[in-house]
Amino acid sequence: MTTSASPRQPATKRGRDTRDAILRAAEEVIGARGFAAASIADITRAAGIAQGTFYIYFDGKEQVFRELVAEMGRFTRRTISEAVVDARDRLEAERIGLRTFLEIAATRPTLYNIVEEARFVDPPSYDAYFTAFARNYARNLGAAAKEGTIRPGDAEIRAWALMGLAVTLGERYGQRNPQADRDAVVAEVFDMLERGLRS
Amino acid sequence: MTTSASPRQPATKRGRDTRDAILRAAEEVIGARGFAAASIADITRAAGIAQGTFYIYFDGKEQVFRELVAEMGRFTRRTISEAVVDARDRLEAERIGLRTFLEIAATRPTLYNIVEEARFVDPPSYDAYFTAFARNYARNLGAAAKEGTIRPGDAEIRAWALMGLAVTLGERYGQRNPQADRDAVVAEVFDMLERGLRS
Repeated sequence: MTTSASPRQPATKRGRDTRDAILRAAEEVIGARGFAAASIADITRAAGIAQGTFYIYFDGKEQVFRELVAEMGRFTRRTISEAVVDARDRLEAERIGLRTFLEIAATRPTLYNIVEEARFVDPPSYDAYFTAFARNYARNLGAAAKEGTIRPGDAEIRAWALMGLAVTLGERYGQRNPQADRDAVVAEVFDMLERGLRS
Repeated sequence: MTTSASPRQPATKRGRDTRDAILRAAEEVIGARGFAAASIADITRAAGIAQGTFYIYFDGKEQVFRELVAEMGRFTRRTISEAVVDARDRLEAERIGLRTFLEIAATRPTLYNIVEEARFVDPPSYDAYFTAFARNYARNLGAAAKEGTIRPGDAEIRAWALMGLAVTLGERYGQRNPQADRDAVVAEVFDMLERGLRS
């Protein structure tokens, strides 16, 4: 899953597979039990490797955690970028982006937990995650206002508002309720965002 | 601050003052250091009471924490209800409600941290907090659609979307940035919510 460069990326395929197995095991264990309760022994057991092998790839639990948060950011941004590539305009792209995000929250609930836990475990990772999203979002909204697809307005405030809405809907109609009708959720929310609530 | 009934509310004024001092000290200590790092000794020291006195009012740290989350819910709902009492219609009430919420986030950043940490420390409290808000919200939005102030739509989905937006904006333009121009934030967001983004 990790494609962008990240620290100590192993040179061999086997090394990359082992590192990835550690990350997947850490995602599972930390995502399910929380950071404090998850031990490195739990992670290496779940990965099926010796505990010493862990330290070839990571300095400790904190570093694996940071890497998971960064990975979640890259994965989410890439998945959304790929999903919206054929969108006709920014509003359609935002709609597909929200739909894609809700699906990620539903299918990878543990990674979702990890990003939220970063608020307490590793605040700089948490900030970096949301700031990168907001920057992207604001750039796209600014461009859409410039080209006239959406009404003019403060792109940064809009970006944080839309991001907040996505995070809570992802928790409510994705992570905690994988059976939810996410198409209906997105249709309802975009009716509000495109046309407004006022009758 | 606590006015609604809650478990083991002391009968005397002095008892209520002591209990309240413990809650305020716990808010400060847990809100600043996080639940795991805050000890009961830290809390009683900050409250200026003997450690034994703590147990007259609470079973342990978990109970104080639960009570803080419940108190934050009551306080926020009451403060918003009072603020919107003269609103002309539901959209104005929602706007004043968001403005009030951002102010709470700016002026009581530690309570804000505590509610967010509840997601991990005490998930039932966290769920109860947001579910109570969403229920209120959905009831108000449903009534507004019925009376024709806002367009018809799924009140529950709208409620969770608006709540999510408020939480993130509260963090961004309140808790972390008490100097932010919150009037501008609310004006921008309500321009989007009332009239929609589409040009």
